[in-house]
Amino acid sequence: MEDAFERLRHRLSVARRSEPADIVLAGGRVLSVFTGELLDADVAIADGHVAGLGEYEGRETVDCTGLILLPGFIDGHMHIESTKLMVDQFARAALPWGTTTVVLDPHEIANVFGLRGVRALLRASEGIPLDYFVMASSCVPASQFETSAETVTAEDIAAFLAEEPGALGLAEMMNYPSVVAGEEESLAKLQVADRMGRHIDGHAPGLSGPELNAYVAAGVRSDHECTTLEEALEKRRLGMWIMIREGSAARNLEALLPMVLEHGPADTMLVTDDREPDHLLEEGHVNDVVRRAVAMGCPPADAVLMGTLHPARYHGLRTHGGVAPGYVADVVAVEDLAEFRPMSVWKRGRLVAERGRPVDIPRVEAPTWMRDSVRIGPMDAATFRIPAGGPVRVIGVDSGEIVTRALVVDPGIRDGEAVAEPERDLAKVAVIERHLGSGRIGLGFVRGFGLRRGALASTHAHDAHNLVVVGVDDADMAAAAGRLAETGGGQVAVAGGTVVAELPCPVGGLMSDLPVEEVAASARRLEEAARDLGSSLRAPFMTMSFLALSVVPELKITDLGLVDTVRFELVPLQA
Amino acid sequence: MEDAFERLRHRLSVARRSEPADIVLAGGRVLSVFTGELLDADVAIADGHVAGLGEYEGRETVDCTGLILLPGFIDGHMHIESTKLMVDQFARAALPWGTTTVVLDPHEIANVFGLRGVRALLRASEGIPLDYFVMASSCVPASQFETSAETVTAEDIAAFLAEEPGALGLAEMMNYPSVVAGEEESLAKLQVADRMGRHIDGHAPGLSGPELNAYVAAGVRSDHECTTLEEALEKRRLGMWIMIREGSAARNLEALLPMVLEHGPADTMLVTDDREPDHLLEEGHVNDVVRRAVAMGCPPADAVLMGTLHPARYHGLRTHGGVAPGYVADVVAVEDLAEFRPMSVWKRGRLVAERGRPVDIPRVEAPTWMRDSVRIGPMDAATFRIPAGGPVRVIGVDSGEIVTRALVVDPGIRDGEAVAEPERDLAKVAVIERHLGSGRIGLGFVRGFGLRRGALASTHAHDAHNLVVVGVDDADMAAAAGRLAETGGGQVAVAGGTVVAELPCPVGGLMSDLPVEEVAASARRLEEAARDLGSSLRAPFMTMSFLALSVVPELKITDLGLVDTVRFELVPLQA
Repeated sequence: MEDAFERLRHRLSVARRSEPADIVLAGGRVLSVFTGELLDADVAIADGHVAGLGEYEGRETVDCTGLILLPGFIDGHMHIESTKLMVDQFARAALPWGTTTVVLDPHEIANVFGLRGVRALLRASEGIPLDYFVMASSCVPASQFETSAETVTAEDIAAFLAEEPGALGLAEMMNYPSVVAGEEESLAKLQVADRMGRHIDGHAPGLSGPELNAYVAAGVRSDHECTTLEEALEKRRLGMWIMIREGSAARNLEALLPMVLEHGPADTMLVTDDREPDHLLEEGHVNDVVRRAVAMGCPPADAVLMGTLHPARYHGLRTHGGVAPGYVADVVAVEDLAEFRPMSVWKRGRLVAERGRPVDIPRVEAPTWMRDSVRIGPMDAATFRIPAGGPVRVIGVDSGEIVTRALVVDPGIRDGEAVAEPERDLAKVAVIERHLGSGRIGLGFVRGFGLRRGALASTHAHDAHNLVVVGVDDADMAAAAGRLAETGGGQVAVAGGTVVAELPCPVGGLMSDLPVEEVAASARRLEEAARDLGSSLRAPFMTMSFLALSVVPELKITDLGLVDTVRFELVPLQA
Repeated sequence: MEDAFERLRHRLSVARRSEPADIVLAGGRVLSVFTGELLDADVAIADGHVAGLGEYEGRETVDCTGLILLPGFIDGHMHIESTKLMVDQFARAALPWGTTTVVLDPHEIANVFGLRGVRALLRASEGIPLDYFVMASSCVPASQFETSAETVTAEDIAAFLAEEPGALGLAEMMNYPSVVAGEEESLAKLQVADRMGRHIDGHAPGLSGPELNAYVAAGVRSDHECTTLEEALEKRRLGMWIMIREGSAARNLEALLPMVLEHGPADTMLVTDDREPDHLLEEGHVNDVVRRAVAMGCPPADAVLMGTLHPARYHGLRTHGGVAPGYVADVVAVEDLAEFRPMSVWKRGRLVAERGRPVDIPRVEAPTWMRDSVRIGPMDAATFRIPAGGPVRVIGVDSGEIVTRALVVDPGIRDGEAVAEPERDLAKVAVIERHLGSGRIGLGFVRGFGLRRGALASTHAHDAHNLVVVGVDDADMAAAAGRLAETGGGQVAVAGGTVVAELPCPVGGLMSDLPVEEVAASARRLEEAARDLGSSLRAPFMTMSFLALSVVPELKITDLGLVDTVRFELVPLQA
């Protein structure tokens, strides 16, 4: 306490110029997110906080002549597991892009390890110069239609929010039909958040009219699933904060930016939700979404606002999101308000990235118990056999969308079996329960991958993260699944019985422990392998990982079988 | 708990149209504060909350054809004591103007009774259909230069914030020099708020440059004392929320509105701070400030935003400030977005005012112990004698300003005494300690009242609320002070030894227990009496009540004598 007192006193003393700052970022222009103006001002930093803007002297001075100083970027909604990176490697990748704070919904790891897994991530992040906040996962499992390893109850959430200072609110309430219907289990979770004064993230693709009103009336205050301008506007009018998502698979910026251009940036954020490691490493993070927004005509100050102050405000982070006195000294120096390519990045006043390279980020290790999570029995080509029986339901996928279409197709028949037909873009898909080794498997067909041969498999399979396999060859499907059991999970491409590319993710079957560059390279090789096997999708592994997400329309598949996610019921393969 | 659960379930059921609403406000247009649009939509209300916007049916339907439905107005910073009204009478006056929520800094009553007085106000307000929130008074006494009855410590504030659900944060940190200097007592209060995750209101007239940076770095996040555009812009750039004040004495809207026109309404609110009862009753409350803003060229949706959602957001009131699902059903029906004259007002779904008249507001009584607070000894003309001694410091006042000018004047001398000279607009001013009956008195001169005869006296004397008297006749000054001792405090005008008008305020010497109409009529008669006595000020009693406020520039007077409020020190009368 006394210490906090002295630190505050030091900060005030620096602010009023009674003593030199710890560091001064001198000679640049500061973007005030509060007025949208560029201010000619030094930034005086004391004790990791901004002490003052104006003319200052410091024990250390950094020449920022010609540069524009922005607040560190904040991703208001993302799943770190999509990057396949542990917290230290994510920081190594994201800090050079200017992201200094993230709000995670770590529900991928929670499906595998429960909130114990989330606590382990928070502990691991403690020495990392990037602020990791989390929302308490609300839907583990995502629905009754999938088998996760763990279940998170309302009581678990209450304890977690009470005990973890980095836990802000309740994460995306994906089971929106349950909320709308007023089902007890969902309402109990909402009421925990309400009683504790915490905010609630939403996830309600396509929800509209009376059902949307009910969802919002339940206290849900954001949505990152809007895909059309009309949908975003309807939600914003009702008081939801709109998180415009620009991920690797789902990209909504172009469709939704007109809302900002017409109605201003209020109550709007730019988020990434899910980004693949190579996408993150090569194109950027929040800064990339900000850049795209500006390229599409968004005033730069508004774009920055949506990637800094607005997520901070939405999440109640009172000292994040601005370069202003009393705020944490998270500062990004850029050359222009068009490319948003950081020259230098400071986290709490310390230089953490320079010209695209991270500076002194400590390594962390995941606990040993997180490295043993893939349990499946032996399997072979016969595991994936589907008896013939007339027309079947087929999951139709499109590049850049996580929603699917429910198709009905007459499959080819061979030896009494319904088979994959590459020439008609009809592949098999299987989801294998992999937490308990129950041997349970859901089997079906998918169109849109374009596979000509081989199989792709992954233990990234939202949200239960069972083992998903897409293939046009049953033996390759079995080989791909078997390889993931050997590596502890991850992603793999197999052709002719041989592994042609892979990205092992032994931490919960979700995250690698390798450096970001290697992870990104493996991810790139995987995407190339998928293309070699014929896939025409932009991000086939990302698309595949959403095939099992039973809370996104229209047709999905889990270890329990096909799920009609519009009517929320299991449906048979035969149509 | 179970009950809350069923109420939420009912709300969702109404929202999705599974059962009729309790009430539907039908056929009007709803202003969405989230997009600025007017929506053709019914408002379905369930359990005092908005359940949905759209097409709804209800057990009761109110025809709102031709009307525009706004959120109830919120005053983000006001002192109820300035209205002289108890909480029930304030509600009777404010609800018809559409104000459904107020955030009080009740530091006037806290100077008299400590936080016990604030708790009494909160208890009294519990049955009133207007939401009273309070900020914990940070500066009681306002400075070491005045004698309050009570002292509020950091420990008192911590207990108060922990115990009172209606207590939001730390009220205006008026002792800004102490904050800037990093003095322990002030920092301890700031750290209480910081530790508890509460926000901190500011009060820093004219503060700029490094000192302002220090004040903001300390965590202060709002200011309602800006008088110039430059001042407001400097503060907003640094992250302060700007409360544009349009009170009875201090009126800053015209000077500050250009900031909104140029930089938008973000981080800006419209507040009243201090309004006299007749001003409140006749011209309006927040709706009056909104109306003026629009008349000055502010887009109506922006003006409404600054009087509804923005104060709610600033104060962390998550279900106030919008007509949207899950929000409390505080709704104001107006005919246009120009006059903002409410036709009907609903508080939590109940009709509380119609066509300017309150509907069924219960009466409340202040506890008996709040009615005995004025203790002064006997006094006569001699009490106010000032021995001659050369040029004197004189407080210069202007209409519509609470800041004063520090003048130096050669007073008229008669019989070895410095005397008031009406013909030179030089009156005497005295502040008499009235809580403990110590007999302590500060004596001085004031210019700007224009008094030709008689005396004005008041126990409203910010912030210690000692007894202030301004007069040009020593005997009338004594009579005026004596009368206030008889009535238990309030305000009085005396001429020729006779009371010509008065407004008794027996509750703490600050508030009346009479209906608002009588209080307003008395206040009007007092203003007329002051004008009859020669005063040319717009609000002479309001101006007088700020003469003792030792935290506003430049020269003030307390029971301890004259205070140079720029250098923050007591100064002798003789210049």
